[in-house]
Amino acid sequence: MNDASEHVRTTPAATEGGLQVDMARLRQDVLDLGQIGRDAVLGLNRRAFSEGDRQGRDWFRQRLATAGLELFQDGAANLHGRLDYDGQRPAVVMGSHLDTVPGGGPLDGALGVLVGLEVLRRVKEAGIPLRYPLEVIDFSDEEGRFGGMFGSQALAGQLTPERIQSARDLEGVTLVDAMAAWGLDANEALTARRDPATIHAFLELHIEQGPVLDRRRIGVGIVEAITGLFKWEVRLKGQPNHAGTTPMDMRIDAFQGLAEFGGEVNRILEEHGGPNSRATIGRVELWPGAPNTIPGQATFSLEVRDTDERVLKALSDASRRTLSSIARRRDLMFEFDVLSEITPTRCDPGLLDLIASEAETMGLDYLRLPSGAAHDTQSMSAVARTGMIFVPSIEGRSHSSGEWTNWEDIEAGANLMLRSVLALAARH
Amino acid sequence: MNDASEHVRTTPAATEGGLQVDMARLRQDVLDLGQIGRDAVLGLNRRAFSEGDRQGRDWFRQRLATAGLELFQDGAANLHGRLDYDGQRPAVVMGSHLDTVPGGGPLDGALGVLVGLEVLRRVKEAGIPLRYPLEVIDFSDEEGRFGGMFGSQALAGQLTPERIQSARDLEGVTLVDAMAAWGLDANEALTARRDPATIHAFLELHIEQGPVLDRRRIGVGIVEAITGLFKWEVRLKGQPNHAGTTPMDMRIDAFQGLAEFGGEVNRILEEHGGPNSRATIGRVELWPGAPNTIPGQATFSLEVRDTDERVLKALSDASRRTLSSIARRRDLMFEFDVLSEITPTRCDPGLLDLIASEAETMGLDYLRLPSGAAHDTQSMSAVARTGMIFVPSIEGRSHSSGEWTNWEDIEAGANLMLRSVLALAARH
Repeated sequence: MNDASEHVRTTPAATEGGLQVDMARLRQDVLDLGQIGRDAVLGLNRRAFSEGDRQGRDWFRQRLATAGLELFQDGAANLHGRLDYDGQRPAVVMGSHLDTVPGGGPLDGALGVLVGLEVLRRVKEAGIPLRYPLEVIDFSDEEGRFGGMFGSQALAGQLTPERIQSARDLEGVTLVDAMAAWGLDANEALTARRDPATIHAFLELHIEQGPVLDRRRIGVGIVEAITGLFKWEVRLKGQPNHAGTTPMDMRIDAFQGLAEFGGEVNRILEEHGGPNSRATIGRVELWPGAPNTIPGQATFSLEVRDTDERVLKALSDASRRTLSSIARRRDLMFEFDVLSEITPTRCDPGLLDLIASEAETMGLDYLRLPSGAAHDTQSMSAVARTGMIFVPSIEGRSHSSGEWTNWEDIEAGANLMLRSVLALAARH
Repeated sequence: MNDASEHVRTTPAATEGGLQVDMARLRQDVLDLGQIGRDAVLGLNRRAFSEGDRQGRDWFRQRLATAGLELFQDGAANLHGRLDYDGQRPAVVMGSHLDTVPGGGPLDGALGVLVGLEVLRRVKEAGIPLRYPLEVIDFSDEEGRFGGMFGSQALAGQLTPERIQSARDLEGVTLVDAMAAWGLDANEALTARRDPATIHAFLELHIEQGPVLDRRRIGVGIVEAITGLFKWEVRLKGQPNHAGTTPMDMRIDAFQGLAEFGGEVNRILEEHGGPNSRATIGRVELWPGAPNTIPGQATFSLEVRDTDERVLKALSDASRRTLSSIARRRDLMFEFDVLSEITPTRCDPGLLDLIASEAETMGLDYLRLPSGAAHDTQSMSAVARTGMIFVPSIEGRSHSSGEWTNWEDIEAGANLMLRSVLALAARH
């Protein structure tokens, strides 16, 4: 984490007027939580259901208790902080996650939970009368030790007994065992399912994890959609041969097929994609993989994202056509497996307009943009109308100790969340 | 090995007239030796100084003894079979190697030694008077368990005490220990150096290990040169970033740089290379190597071969320029290490003409071509004028159990070697 003091500037005019978060308290929370789960080897490590996660949750429980907020832990081990919750009226819910990747940063997920906590505290302190109860949720295993978005998918009713039983981490530890070590029954996660009628709206604040806001020097992002994706493992098969004895015109070189496809990726995006399209070849394996052998097989990942399902379909079709054509022309065999497919998620236009309107009232510049990363909001969209606020990530850094956001941007984002929640939940 | 009987066709007209090899005997030698050093795991395995190699050498010693040929083992453990050798007159020397790669085939190296043996036997049996003695050499470790071409480099005086002491195989066994286990002192290899005045000419017969002769249905190759090469490890460094959150125009994607270079390889060969040029990218590693992370580094091998040193230099310059330009345009860092550089070797034009003239007399079609693979002839060129004969490799296969050559091509190649040796060594 950067030296926090470097990021303090004077409070911007944007927050003048109306209820505001207690920035000193929020800031201290960020700094305190950032010390929890530090690991000599991995840096900040609050992987789901690890010792770091346990300490982070304990700290959060204490913060809720100190603030006089109600605590509820559901069957998926999600921690809910509640204000005015009565089980009758639907709640305005905020949520994100306290778990991190190994070697993660202090803000990814944590900031959204802490801002939600601060919103509940300020509303309670100010004694604002509420039409709807408020809730802040720390979702379990967003980062994917056991598959990702476990807690929010539990709320959305997207879990199955099979998925719960089969989930295991890279070391082979099962979710069932990891939760049992905490005295929890993983199967109870099925009971965490939430009736959509109990949620008035769901809002998440998160760091962007990308460079767009930082590069454009815009403090607030309003997330219109979370990109869907398809992820393939592609195999081009040629003939492994001696690199010295096989003339160029007698080669069936699998790498050359991959290189040609690599050069076509941008054309495919230009012809069939839109401004939110992304395509990445991140993993390549050549076989046999020796400098003096013509590659007989190239195995590689192709991951393509977009916010529009039809665009994704067009990109998938174009990728397949291009790969087929390259393979045909080069006498290669082409095959692929679909490793995952995620449908894009749109946030609620009405909620986005509400957030935009509050940002305008605050005099904040904002940018409507897509989220290229997955978030709990994605699952929650199945049971609630959702809205999402981004704050800038300096140089787009995330999932690393260099992850940071200027305090003034945190403050502006937190106040925007507070105002948006009040607009939704306060008795006017 | 294929069923040998499949490859027998009628003896071609090409061998009529003059002394000929005893094809039945040569064929039996090939089949017998092909059974020696079989290994349950690795198939045919006569790696240098292994048990298989020992058995192959013992068998060869016996064949020399049976034929009444003189045996000499030099300090590099090369086995020499000799006819009429007197230490005074320079010898016409044939040579190749009995060692194999693990899982090798029955002909690579072995065929050249067996043809040499057969030539000495036939000349001895026929009582042909010789102006120059004849010699056939089984060179130690051509295939590279301890670096490659050890025996022929010893004869050529290219070894150093340091190289001998530091040579070790992939399992960490040193050459010194492997030879000591046979009661040999590896340092004695320095004494194997041969005075150039003792060699009248050096000839090697070898399988092509490439597809050219087989595709063109030509039975004999006359090797004009053995390609030199440069082998680089290239690193393109960009910025690893989240594949979802980083827009296409904010990426510094190391793989995209590699893909572009892959597409430029053929242009570089067309503009700066010749018909013997080859370029291969056989190994690629992306870092971090995750489907959802833009590659921050691409590390890959570039191996370029040609028979002309100036062409190699031009290809090296063009590769560097192209990589620099791609890196500059894409904001990547570019660096490379030279892993090896081998100067091309030209065979002796006079010897090649002599072989070609004998082939014409025999009515054989032949092709002058380069060798893309390394051979003992390469080292021997430092101390002798050299000539090399290729026989076709079916489908270019080599270093595998599928390596094979039609018997009629073996016979034609063996008779061409016999006639060429007689043209050089017989008292006319």
